[in-house]
Amino acid sequence: MSDPPPFYKHHVFCCVNERAASDPRGCCAGKGSEALRNYMKVRAKELGIANVRINNSGCLDRCALGPTMVIYPEGVWYHYRTAQDVDEILRTHLIEGGRVERLLLRPGDTAPPGEIMVAGATNASRK
Amino acid sequence: MSDPPPFYKHHVFCCVNERAASDPRGCCAGKGSEALRNYMKVRAKELGIANVRINNSGCLDRCALGPTMVIYPEGVWYHYRTAQDVDEILRTHLIEGGRVERLLLRPGDTAPPGEIMVAGATNASRK
Repeated sequence: MSDPPPFYKHHVFCCVNERAASDPRGCCAGKGSEALRNYMKVRAKELGIANVRINNSGCLDRCALGPTMVIYPEGVWYHYRTAQDVDEILRTHLIEGGRVERLLLRPGDTAPPGEIMVAGATNASRK
Repeated sequence: MSDPPPFYKHHVFCCVNERAASDPRGCCAGKGSEALRNYMKVRAKELGIANVRINNSGCLDRCALGPTMVIYPEGVWYHYRTAQDVDEILRTHLIEGGRVERLLLRPGDTAPPGEIMVAGATNASRK
């Protein structure tokens, strides 16, 4: 028996988890994810993107890469920091069906794309 | 260019949204979803289910069917009320790769499976 058809064409989950400022893991809420998620929800509606839901979620457990979002059913993860990042994800991914390569997260990532890992950057000079 | 491989094999989102008791839409939290989600998270770990995340989420917007969860990437939705329901979803869906037919939600559903819709039930006698 096949599964029921999808309820949403795209289901976006934006982590809005908040931790104490003293927590070394940090949190997506502490990096502005709530305002960015709210902006994304409003803009998706303004752009008339059909059959999408821009959801709040609890901790997605990739805190070092945050703010993070994951878009299902395709299972594509993004880091995002600004309204311009959100606009690009809306346009390129949700409307055009492409990918925003510069913001994509891959399974082994330990830092957001484009950010230098201080520990990693010095590894090359170590034995 | 193909997408990065999936980060989780199964990503479960349990709505834990809470609304005021006076809100006619009701809410999943008001139907016990937080405790059930916490139970599911603990049991998934006890059962040693690998590469799954049992996530809290905000409102999934299918309030009348709550408590609701959706499992991606397959995009399968369930209604659940009890620890036994959660156990069956863990075993049948996440471990065995099957579906819990009696709890499945379909796109057009307006009430949880097995519950009689009062308005709908009387439609047959109307012209």
